[in-house]
Amino acid sequence: MSKIKDPSLADKGKTQYEWAKDHMQVLTHAMTKLKKSRPLKNITLGVCLQITKETSVLLMGLQDLGAKVVCCGGNPLTTQDDIAAFLDSQGIKVLAWSNQTKPEYDWCQNMVLQHKPDILTDDGGDLNIKAHKAKLRIFGATEETTTGITRYQSLAKKGRLQYPIIAVNNARTKMLFDNQYGTGQSTIDGFLQAMNLLFASKRTVIAGYGWLGRGVAKRCQGMGAKCIVTEVDPIKALEAHMDGFEVMPMSQAAKLGDIFITCTGMRNIITKQHILSMNDGAVLGNVGHFDVEIDAKFLLSQKVRQVRPNLDECVLPNKNKVYLVSKGRVANLIASEGHPPEIMALSFSNQLYSILYILKNHKKLKNQVYPVPEEIDNQIAQDALDSEKIKLDKLSKKQIQYHTSW
Amino acid sequence: MSKIKDPSLADKGKTQYEWAKDHMQVLTHAMTKLKKSRPLKNITLGVCLQITKETSVLLMGLQDLGAKVVCCGGNPLTTQDDIAAFLDSQGIKVLAWSNQTKPEYDWCQNMVLQHKPDILTDDGGDLNIKAHKAKLRIFGATEETTTGITRYQSLAKKGRLQYPIIAVNNARTKMLFDNQYGTGQSTIDGFLQAMNLLFASKRTVIAGYGWLGRGVAKRCQGMGAKCIVTEVDPIKALEAHMDGFEVMPMSQAAKLGDIFITCTGMRNIITKQHILSMNDGAVLGNVGHFDVEIDAKFLLSQKVRQVRPNLDECVLPNKNKVYLVSKGRVANLIASEGHPPEIMALSFSNQLYSILYILKNHKKLKNQVYPVPEEIDNQIAQDALDSEKIKLDKLSKKQIQYHTSW
Amino acid sequence: MSKIKDPSLADKGKTQYEWAKDHMQVLTHAMTKLKKSRPLKNITLGVCLQITKETSVLLMGLQDLGAKVVCCGGNPLTTQDDIAAFLDSQGIKVLAWSNQTKPEYDWCQNMVLQHKPDILTDDGGDLNIKAHKAKLRIFGATEETTTGITRYQSLAKKGRLQYPIIAVNNARTKMLFDNQYGTGQSTIDGFLQAMNLLFASKRTVIAGYGWLGRGVAKRCQGMGAKCIVTEVDPIKALEAHMDGFEVMPMSQAAKLGDIFITCTGMRNIITKQHILSMNDGAVLGNVGHFDVEIDAKFLLSQKVRQVRPNLDECVLPNKNKVYLVSKGRVANLIASEGHPPEIMALSFSNQLYSILYILKNHKKLKNQVYPVPEEIDNQIAQDALDSEKIKLDKLSKKQIQYHTSW
Amino acid sequence: MSKIKDPSLADKGKTQYEWAKDHMQVLTHAMTKLKKSRPLKNITLGVCLQITKETSVLLMGLQDLGAKVVCCGGNPLTTQDDIAAFLDSQGIKVLAWSNQTKPEYDWCQNMVLQHKPDILTDDGGDLNIKAHKAKLRIFGATEETTTGITRYQSLAKKGRLQYPIIAVNNARTKMLFDNQYGTGQSTIDGFLQAMNLLFASKRTVIAGYGWLGRGVAKRCQGMGAKCIVTEVDPIKALEAHMDGFEVMPMSQAAKLGDIFITCTGMRNIITKQHILSMNDGAVLGNVGHFDVEIDAKFLLSQKVRQVRPNLDECVLPNKNKVYLVSKGRVANLIASEGHPPEIMALSFSNQLYSILYILKNHKKLKNQVYPVPEEIDNQIAQDALDSEKIKLDKLSKKQIQYHTSW
Repeated sequence: MSKIKDPSLADKGKTQYEWAKDHMQVLTHAMTKLKKSRPLKNITLGVCLQITKETSVLLMGLQDLGAKVVCCGGNPLTTQDDIAAFLDSQGIKVLAWSNQTKPEYDWCQNMVLQHKPDILTDDGGDLNIKAHKAKLRIFGATEETTTGITRYQSLAKKGRLQYPIIAVNNARTKMLFDNQYGTGQSTIDGFLQAMNLLFASKRTVIAGYGWLGRGVAKRCQGMGAKCIVTEVDPIKALEAHMDGFEVMPMSQAAKLGDIFITCTGMRNIITKQHILSMNDGAVLGNVGHFDVEIDAKFLLSQKVRQVRPNLDECVLPNKNKVYLVSKGRVANLIASEGHPPEIMALSFSNQLYSILYILKNHKKLKNQVYPVPEEIDNQIAQDALDSEKIKLDKLSKKQIQYHTSW
Repeated sequence: MSKIKDPSLADKGKTQYEWAKDHMQVLTHAMTKLKKSRPLKNITLGVCLQITKETSVLLMGLQDLGAKVVCCGGNPLTTQDDIAAFLDSQGIKVLAWSNQTKPEYDWCQNMVLQHKPDILTDDGGDLNIKAHKAKLRIFGATEETTTGITRYQSLAKKGRLQYPIIAVNNARTKMLFDNQYGTGQSTIDGFLQAMNLLFASKRTVIAGYGWLGRGVAKRCQGMGAKCIVTEVDPIKALEAHMDGFEVMPMSQAAKLGDIFITCTGMRNIITKQHILSMNDGAVLGNVGHFDVEIDAKFLLSQKVRQVRPNLDECVLPNKNKVYLVSKGRVANLIASEGHPPEIMALSFSNQLYSILYILKNHKKLKNQVYPVPEEIDNQIAQDALDSEKIKLDKLSKKQIQYHTSW
Repeated sequence: MSKIKDPSLADKGKTQYEWAKDHMQVLTHAMTKLKKSRPLKNITLGVCLQITKETSVLLMGLQDLGAKVVCCGGNPLTTQDDIAAFLDSQGIKVLAWSNQTKPEYDWCQNMVLQHKPDILTDDGGDLNIKAHKAKLRIFGATEETTTGITRYQSLAKKGRLQYPIIAVNNARTKMLFDNQYGTGQSTIDGFLQAMNLLFASKRTVIAGYGWLGRGVAKRCQGMGAKCIVTEVDPIKALEAHMDGFEVMPMSQAAKLGDIFITCTGMRNIITKQHILSMNDGAVLGNVGHFDVEIDAKFLLSQKVRQVRPNLDECVLPNKNKVYLVSKGRVANLIASEGHPPEIMALSFSNQLYSILYILKNHKKLKNQVYPVPEEIDNQIAQDALDSEKIKLDKLSKKQIQYHTSW
Repeated sequence: MSKIKDPSLADKGKTQYEWAKDHMQVLTHAMTKLKKSRPLKNITLGVCLQITKETSVLLMGLQDLGAKVVCCGGNPLTTQDDIAAFLDSQGIKVLAWSNQTKPEYDWCQNMVLQHKPDILTDDGGDLNIKAHKAKLRIFGATEETTTGITRYQSLAKKGRLQYPIIAVNNARTKMLFDNQYGTGQSTIDGFLQAMNLLFASKRTVIAGYGWLGRGVAKRCQGMGAKCIVTEVDPIKALEAHMDGFEVMPMSQAAKLGDIFITCTGMRNIITKQHILSMNDGAVLGNVGHFDVEIDAKFLLSQKVRQVRPNLDECVLPNKNKVYLVSKGRVANLIASEGHPPEIMALSFSNQLYSILYILKNHKKLKNQVYPVPEEIDNQIAQDALDSEKIKLDKLSKKQIQYHTSW
């Protein structure tokens, strides 16, 4: 049985599903080709993903391939209730609604696991951790985020991983595009909607210069901002420096910034002490996975009022007002609609092919974290180019020989 | 008497007013300095502007300076009803609500004129044209848009202008910043919200390479789009070419574009014929003043359904789906909140100082279109820099001599 | 009689002339059309311009149109001796060689005037000032630089201008392109050759944010530099700020910069005091017209040695080494070859058409500084687009009406 | 015994050495720290590198650490004879001069090997291949280029590698910076000097979107060019597409481009057929390692004349003129001075530390291609940041725990 907020929103969800589907051709073409053979017949998929219009395209497609799909939300706040209603109306089991409490969120995940899924698809690792605690028999899992993968690798190191997991997040067609172009754009979108302030001329502090941070930095610069980067890795810091950004520690950047965007996947990036040294009017938001990058607890314990949707004004002891986007949770998903469908089509093609790969190969696989096989990755990029009618050069025999003939 | 949609929205409007006010320091500092002398005592101001949170800061300030303020909306669709309610609650006469019909819109303007305003502030020229038809006795007027100024200059040429008008739009601190940085950002904002598609890699056709168009082009490029520019002016076209954009006629661009943004202030930019040659899935929107740049009439007479807020799907006779943002009306104002407050602070400082200038000098002025006096323009830029604590160099006597001593 | 360095360089000059001519189609097409009517028959042109391969294309063309051409160099240092030799070999009177002393430079200009030119073409104003002192009878003149125009306007204000002068520099097809794209590129070129250091990550201080400065800033940013802008004009400063550059006074920038580029046309921009506060290793260069922007006198009176072509190491009293490009003279002309031919084709088309305009209209013209007529400006842009086969849209009658019909 | 062109150039070389040394602090600081212990005492190093001012800083430093250094040039054309003279004057054995024939180039390498080097440093693999043929006893080698590494990996696959080789090129502080920022800038430099044409508005075709190609593309775009990318790898192609570049096969790009830059490390990239379809005036150059990317043989068998230094005009059978930079050899090294010293300091720090690593560990190492150890890579980045006084954040214990504690 599904548990959702309001089944009457199904029609509204359907329009969104259709819009997304029209812009996810990489994924839908693959689905169409596979449909006849129903490769997921008799398989139960337990899915924990952000419930968005794009996810609905993946889930509908997986059901079309024969799977029984049971899903919950990848984030307690961000479930789109109209999409949940639409999926439910189409026979998918949905355990998700917006603005859940932590216990509700956990309950939903546990409910998913009670359907005895064969394969799990996770977004952050909470579902897989619960499956491990429950010692469920699972063929394998796929993981959408860096955060989740870090958790599994930590388990694997200790020999405690119970089934193979494919690190979808690390696929080049996922990470390079989702983290860089997807989050780059959706961060701009989320901050614009939350604050409606001018980016041009603003000192924007970007914590972290991984794929996420450099995607965000590029777009902020494209909007006219002056970017400051903070890092802990000397090589990434040197790249940021050579890319023309200011690099400094957060303690120094805190005093200069107008806008702060954390992109690290790490905790304690912007601390109480940093916040107390900020300028009046500073805006803070996080686009890393968890809400531990900014000390939101401190901020939300101040004199707080919501001044705009997803924007809280926090009056500090020093009288400065500081503004927090979406309570420190992933701003690009909460304050905007998240990644555009074209990007999600790439990520979810990796999910699709990785699920099929697990199904076919799980007996041969060890209890390890595996990368997405290279041929899958290349195929998806090729599909994406094909859908845009972009042609490439091809290596001739002579050229291939040149590489191997020394 | 005001006529607005819902007075109970006043509190919601107040929060927005406060947010905007906090980010319009250029304007509020000027207001504070002038407040004591109440320079607008006994003056009635007739204002036709987009009713937004930023406009509320201007109007509240003008009232503070002693004026009786009567206002209507600058666009039949875009009035923010909570702002209207807040202004009304503060004693300003407001004749504006969202989604007006054309007759309602005209009626509101006429009501403003019935208050016998001494000075008019207009956004497009409709109010001034009506004042001319009614042969009202007016000291003078200020105008916010290129479109309005073109209309008055046409009247002035024929000797039919009845009072001096200050072309606020043409002030460097207005035009360079509002048209370029303001519309640049709000266009991205509006299109992102309307379509939630990826800008990166999309072929974006920008019609017009004036300040508006180049602001939009710069931001689209900053979001990763491939920009194509169409122009009629050879010098602007050559600039676009040298700035690294593709330049071609619309008939050719129509076949290539994914996203089309009109920025011309001219009519018939994207015609039925252009539309019929577009790719399936093309998205069209206008950020020029009037809704005559795209043939919306043709589009909206097709098989239409709204697929997202402010986005209509139009199924063409050739089966292609084409999407129209906010029915061809100013997308950056309707599909987003419009210019951010920092930009409007510059524009509205020009309005404030120009109103005071008319009051002081109207007897000396001829019935012409006047530029904003240069010293006002410079003062506003200096105020803006001061508010950001940015210091400039100053010419020494020796240096000034160097320029004049040959 | 010509006076040049070495006639045997004529062949080398010819190859360069041909290369430039092949890349100046805007100019050469115009020349070809006009050639038959020989409109400059019996006219003597006195020309003071940088003697470069591009100038040779202009001068050869003018001679082809019937003129007797006498020329000297626009800068005592930058004459390319092979070009001078080539021009001389083709029957043009040339009084120019590289690395002249000031007296030699003046002598050459005086020699040009002894040929009783009918029309003068100047680069900086020295030739025209001499013609004024000599009270020569001249039809009119054209001027290539901002600096020259400022000098004539100063004369005109005092009623002392003796003939009309067309401000070629201010033509949009000259100023927008030459100052912005031309100097932008040639500055990068000059500094790269002089110093061969990495631009990426360097703090580059750009003095002045006119067309010159913003062209230079855009290219420095394009090479990965972090740009700081200094200004005296608040509106330009605000633009630089909104364009994402740091803005501060030179006294502060001097302490931060790695590379300094002056683009002002003003004197005393980088003073002894600024220099003494700079970091060890700072590189300084000027691309404004005269060598008065940087205190080169102070620098060159220190312990100096040339460490690379066009780069002098100056050891300051505080032991810091500071490097001066091309002795503070126009770095983009001296340390590189200057503007590329495509840009000079635009500038020199303005020269050509303005010379013809003076010839035709000089009796009607007053002793004032005139802009290049708008129709010439537009024609040149159109010619440039034609030569690249770029097509524009054209306003229909209906559209033209729309602009004028209110 | 050295064999060089002209010992009298030593002083000129010394000035250049000093200039470079002043801008290679990352390397010189490391050298200074190591100097006392003379870790390379009694070691003979055989070095095959481009003989430039930056290389002289490395070689002088290695000698200072106790090594006997014997070197030849990494390219038959590009040896700077003044640097060779300076090195020779300082006691280093130099077998290199500019514009060598292939037999001379081979002879020099063979002479280096006759000194029985213990460790080799190579740039392309020719020296190591010769050492393999001669079956010399070598501790190990370091390699500066992608090309070289590909060759060794091919040998290693077949079990024929005779000693361990460290792939210096693949160090992140080498590859990311040298290939991207170094070649990016030096390519602009080389093409500007060779052609002196405007980059702005030019269609620039970049073959290959690896680190090299994307560095070049970014800089070309920064100069105002319109970039087209050709690729064979679908993921890289998709990245180029998302970065806003046009992607197409060379057969199509050939017809559109004004400037062509090959960055692939592969042969037959621009073929005779491509060349015959190009526009009149196209400029072609290669910045990949070998001169096999462009069919220079075909071009140079046409009617050829040198129109500028490093630029040959080739008149094709179809009458079109096409221009080839530096005969298809590495344009950024031949037509300009190559990478700036700051970049070479990073690369050569990797060389230094890798040589020391081989010396210390060669007995433990297998006959394989090894990456530069991660700790060396990080140390060099940290050194570079230190030399710019840039500080980073540091992970706290709590934060490190966070990553490992799941």
